[in-house]
Amino acid sequence: MKEKKVSESKTIMTEMIMPNDTNPLGNLMGGNLLRWMDIAGGICAGKHCEAHIVTVSVDHVSFEKPIHVGDVITLEASITRAFNTSVEVNVEVFAADIKGGANRRCNNAYFTFVAVNDETKKPVPVPQLLPLTRTEQTLFEGAARRRELRLILNGRLKPSEANEIKTYFAEQ
Amino acid sequence: MKEKKVSESKTIMTEMIMPNDTNPLGNLMGGNLLRWMDIAGGICAGKHCEAHIVTVSVDHVSFEKPIHVGDVITLEASITRAFNTSVEVNVEVFAADIKGGANRRCNNAYFTFVAVNDETKKPVPVPQLLPLTRTEQTLFEGAARRRELRLILNGRLKPSEANEIKTYFAEQ
Amino acid sequence: MKEKKVSESKTIMTEMIMPNDTNPLGNLMGGNLLRWMDIAGGICAGKHCEAHIVTVSVDHVSFEKPIHVGDVITLEASITRAFNTSVEVNVEVFAADIKGGANRRCNNAYFTFVAVNDETKKPVPVPQLLPLTRTEQTLFEGAARRRELRLILNGRLKPSEANEIKTYFAEQ
Amino acid sequence: MKEKKVSESKTIMTEMIMPNDTNPLGNLMGGNLLRWMDIAGGICAGKHCEAHIVTVSVDHVSFEKPIHVGDVITLEASITRAFNTSVEVNVEVFAADIKGGANRRCNNAYFTFVAVNDETKKPVPVPQLLPLTRTEQTLFEGAARRRELRLILNGRLKPSEANEIKTYFAEQ
Amino acid sequence: MKEKKVSESKTIMTEMIMPNDTNPLGNLMGGNLLRWMDIAGGICAGKHCEAHIVTVSVDHVSFEKPIHVGDVITLEASITRAFNTSVEVNVEVFAADIKGGANRRCNNAYFTFVAVNDETKKPVPVPQLLPLTRTEQTLFEGAARRRELRLILNGRLKPSEANEIKTYFAEQ
Amino acid sequence: MKEKKVSESKTIMTEMIMPNDTNPLGNLMGGNLLRWMDIAGGICAGKHCEAHIVTVSVDHVSFEKPIHVGDVITLEASITRAFNTSVEVNVEVFAADIKGGANRRCNNAYFTFVAVNDETKKPVPVPQLLPLTRTEQTLFEGAARRRELRLILNGRLKPSEANEIKTYFAEQ
Repeated sequence: MKEKKVSESKTIMTEMIMPNDTNPLGNLMGGNLLRWMDIAGGICAGKHCEAHIVTVSVDHVSFEKPIHVGDVITLEASITRAFNTSVEVNVEVFAADIKGGANRRCNNAYFTFVAVNDETKKPVPVPQLLPLTRTEQTLFEGAARRRELRLILNGRLKPSEANEIKTYFAEQ
Repeated sequence: MKEKKVSESKTIMTEMIMPNDTNPLGNLMGGNLLRWMDIAGGICAGKHCEAHIVTVSVDHVSFEKPIHVGDVITLEASITRAFNTSVEVNVEVFAADIKGGANRRCNNAYFTFVAVNDETKKPVPVPQLLPLTRTEQTLFEGAARRRELRLILNGRLKPSEANEIKTYFAEQ
Repeated sequence: MKEKKVSESKTIMTEMIMPNDTNPLGNLMGGNLLRWMDIAGGICAGKHCEAHIVTVSVDHVSFEKPIHVGDVITLEASITRAFNTSVEVNVEVFAADIKGGANRRCNNAYFTFVAVNDETKKPVPVPQLLPLTRTEQTLFEGAARRRELRLILNGRLKPSEANEIKTYFAEQ
Repeated sequence: MKEKKVSESKTIMTEMIMPNDTNPLGNLMGGNLLRWMDIAGGICAGKHCEAHIVTVSVDHVSFEKPIHVGDVITLEASITRAFNTSVEVNVEVFAADIKGGANRRCNNAYFTFVAVNDETKKPVPVPQLLPLTRTEQTLFEGAARRRELRLILNGRLKPSEANEIKTYFAEQ
Repeated sequence: MKEKKVSESKTIMTEMIMPNDTNPLGNLMGGNLLRWMDIAGGICAGKHCEAHIVTVSVDHVSFEKPIHVGDVITLEASITRAFNTSVEVNVEVFAADIKGGANRRCNNAYFTFVAVNDETKKPVPVPQLLPLTRTEQTLFEGAARRRELRLILNGRLKPSEANEIKTYFAEQ
Repeated sequence: MKEKKVSESKTIMTEMIMPNDTNPLGNLMGGNLLRWMDIAGGICAGKHCEAHIVTVSVDHVSFEKPIHVGDVITLEASITRAFNTSVEVNVEVFAADIKGGANRRCNNAYFTFVAVNDETKKPVPVPQLLPLTRTEQTLFEGAARRRELRLILNGRLKPSEANEIKTYFAEQ
């Protein structure tokens, strides 16, 4: 399978925050943002893998800057690394008011998607990623460490065997 | 007011076609596509005008290639020309299947939005557009002709006074 | 196939404007109105054609009087003319406040729908329309001119061959 | 306050049944139909009362003929009788398939709405109804009996004092 | 078929009232509450019957205490009695404000569901109910009377033959 | 402020999976599940804190067992620990088919919510939690470790200062 570039599957999604997306304080509810992030990430993963995909996990997400009713948000989803049958996607969220002002980066999250066969619904191999820019390479390298943490959190890897993370803690 | 470029307000929106967006034949309903086009166009207009905006009109739209449940559509909205208190926005629609295949340009439409004051809700002046590329210039020039046609269709201009259109018909 | 009357497929739809249908100024978004107009028009076309239908196009629509959250809108869709495999439907929009006051005609639009076979999804012939009242006859005659304009706008007819429109411009 | 006719507030609503409105068997869920009936009834009551209205109750409703995804339903809401500050509305439901065939009357329900002041939210007097046709008169007379039954069911009237109902049972 | 207890199918549903669920006065619309009650009742019935279910009817419902945007409602659905192929479910509604204060019981309704075969969609026998507590027994006994009233209202039983109801009126 | 028990704010939410909640493979999309988990967690947090709340973060979530259209899911949200102005909530997800069969625990996630003043929108102190059962105590103790991990992931704590986590790794 041919390696693919980040730009080949980058996905941009824009949404306007409507009243039903917000809590009684008039702020976008965290779960609604997660829902849009999952859709943007999934479309990006489907394009890279050229396959149906299923959400496997989302890493820790924090919500720092409130987003208000009437604001416009932009989600940018990019593949950071491909493994055997799965990909890690970084979804970044930016917000602005309806007039295009008060631009701000709100948060980001790493989603993992697995590519599946349409009929058997079993995992299928995915094209590898060719990171080009420095940012793409940094995200590519970090992906191995984030994957190890996921395996620990899911109980599939003993902390003592998490070599990438151990190194990370030792180097700090 | 400072002139602005097309790129400063270009808006990209991606949506996945869900079951409730489709008719019993499994195709995206035309009206649902128009709704998304209006939102993408409105966000683009708001960014250019730095103001709240209101949809004034949409020109003739035709729907040529069916879009299916599970497809992913991308809407690209760009300002084509600014008038005194209004802008014309061209919204183009592209579709692909969930695996990123079967890419196709589906259709486009010209929306007109007027910028309004938040409180008085009266029209306010908008920044002019600086077309740079050849495509941007072609769209800019066509906007005057399309505007004349709208004024005729709304009964605000006599056909005999539609100079731009007369010339257009004469030149064919 | 037996000719059918306008009244046999006339469709009335009533909707209450909810918060999520409106922009931050509290006005119904143009795209949401287009979506309802397409549904009302499509139901009307389905009844006349006794077939599944697909939206082919919508002519220029302008939005003149704002519609507010809590308002009630009534859409009236009527066939204006049937061609070989398609029909033109006129959808008129009326609004009133929740107490039935402030009645006003808001706008209208001409939609074109094509009748399709359930399985092949190919166009199928439709019953012709029998216009009875003077209004029905005026709309019936105008439909030929509007159709010519659509063919020009879609690049399927040269402006120089648009005989109905030429006459219309000449007579003004 | 001037008496009003049934026709002055009659409300017709048309909806197409979408996938999300149906259960896993593909039939419209009863609760979704009740929601549309309440909206149609409420719009009708608002028009008659020229006031904001609140749903007070709905009488026994049964669902006899299944309605399928893709079907089109028509709801007709008419005032049957006005009391001091409330009205009874009869909402009838008809269904047809997308081609306008298989027309059938599905069911009906009697809703009671009370008119309220916008600010105090206290009940306000409503215009009385002038029943004209025989059907309107029959519904008008039955409304008194239905109201008595509601008062019993709400514990506000002793069964022994339900004179209208006693007569009804005696006459059978 | 083995008798089942009420607790085996009791269903609790919690919903937050969003702007689109409310009327222009900011109160939850009655029809939206009925829709949620039908879903809660249907899930409860499906669990008891271990079958697909269809809503057959809902008895008289009254709406006494207004529920506001931002409030949280809890619906509790319990089987009251099983008949041959149908069950009666009591759905009770409680509301509180977003801070958990102002707790109140709002209303209740009796829904009837019939269990159907997935393929034939014909009614199938259901497990009988074993009422244990005093409340469960009271509801169980009342179910026979409520069923008789439904049969009268549907025209399937003559009032003169409604023995349970006659006794009820006589005893008051 | 008085300590509160877990049971005082435990929140149960039941949802039926509708077509629009699922991807083209017919499985519930991960983001939709996260949205419901956030709502259930937020209602639980609001009840415990007796205040408006805002989602601060969600820890790593993995999706292991697919949930299908027509399935019924139950979400159980419980406070695990209260800090100064925030609470950690554990949301567990269970699924079953429409007939109540194929019961399974699907996944869980830890959400953090901060209590805010209605007007200033600044954080306010929250009641502490009194864990009673062994499970409640285990979750209470783990909450300190999970909080440290969050602070590291947000860059607010150096890994070298994460004493709880260091101990956890050392003990494995």
